[in-house]
This record gives sequence, C-alpha cells and structure tokens, in this order.
Amino acid sequence: MSGIGVIATLRTQPGKETEFEGVFAELAAAVRANEAGNSYYKLFRTGETGVYKVLECYDDDAAVEAHRASDHFRTLGAKLGPCLAGAPEIERLPAV
Amino acid sequence: MSGIGVIATLRTQPGKETEFEGVFAELAAAVRANEAGNSYYKLFRTGETGVYKVLECYDDDAAVEAHRASDHFRTLGAKLGPCLAGAPEIERLPAV
Repeated sequence: MSGIGVIATLRTQPGKETEFEGVFAELAAAVRANEAGNSYYKLFRTGETGVYKVLECYDDDAAVEAHRASDHFRTLGAKLGPCLAGAPEIERLPAV
Repeated sequence: MSGIGVIATLRTQPGKETEFEGVFAELAAAVRANEAGNSYYKLFRTGETGVYKVLECYDDDAAVEAHRASDHFRTLGAKLGPCLAGAPEIERLPAV
C-alpha cells in the first residue's frame, strides 16, 4: 500500500454551516470526478458544532499538488473561504 | 452522503512497528473482504515514530458493531494487542 492521507480540520463561522456543507458537496463531487490521483475525499462532522474534518487520500505528492492546483479547488475554495473562521488545519499522513 | 467515520490513533511498543504493520495488513485485508458495511479502512504513519492513524468509514452504527464483533477483528486484534503501548484512541465522526 502507499499514498498520502490528509486529515483537514475546518471551522466555520457561526451560522454558515449549511452554506459550507452545500459548497463542500460540490467540491467533493468535482474532486472525485476529476482527480485520478485521489482515492478518498469525504466530509465529517465532529462533536463540536461548526467543526468538520475531511478525510482524504492521494496516490502521491504529485496528486496532492494536482488537487491544490485544480480549477475546482481554486474556484470552490474561494467560495468556502468566507464560510470559514480561519485557515484549515492540515495533517499529512504517509500511508503504510 | 451518510456514514460514520473513525480516526483510530494507535501507539506501538518501541521496536514492534514491523510486527504491528504486518498483522495490521492482514486485518485490513479481512475487513475489506468481509465487511459489506465498511467502505474505507487504511493505515497511515504520523510524524511521530510508532504512532499510527487508521482512517475508517462505515455505513452506519450496525456496521461499526459488526466490525468490532467480527472474528477477524477479535483474532487479529488479539495479535495486535501485544504490539501496542496502551489502548487505541478512537474518534467517531458522523458523515455529512
């Protein structure tokens, strides 16, 4: 097995949860449809209101870079930004 | 979308990393082969030696319970136990 896992923790502005979830659903669909190097991309709630975690997996570093550079990530990321209370916290995990 | 995500953090005894990874590979194969309600189960390293995270996803609570009650989880879990330095830390995340 190989690959790179990512746990991204996102915190929304109060009251922006529904808008955030809607835009994120578009982003997740675009990632899965367009990124051959992505094998997992799913949004979860946590026990804390407005705090979400995205579990992600990519084939390699190039696939992570392709994700960040993609049109859909740039466009939808710009729409997510105003929903968020600060920068996402990103944990990168090498697959075993 | 629905489901239940799990982030399990496991810490091995020093020097037990290779044995742990070998048994875990058997467990992951058994989970994916036998659990219809499991959609993701993958082991990652972290930045800290001997600390691993498992990213998991299940269809529902029943699928999580089926995982814990399965023969492969009980049998291989018993083989993993002596490799670990303490109980796993489990974070449960409702899918959006």
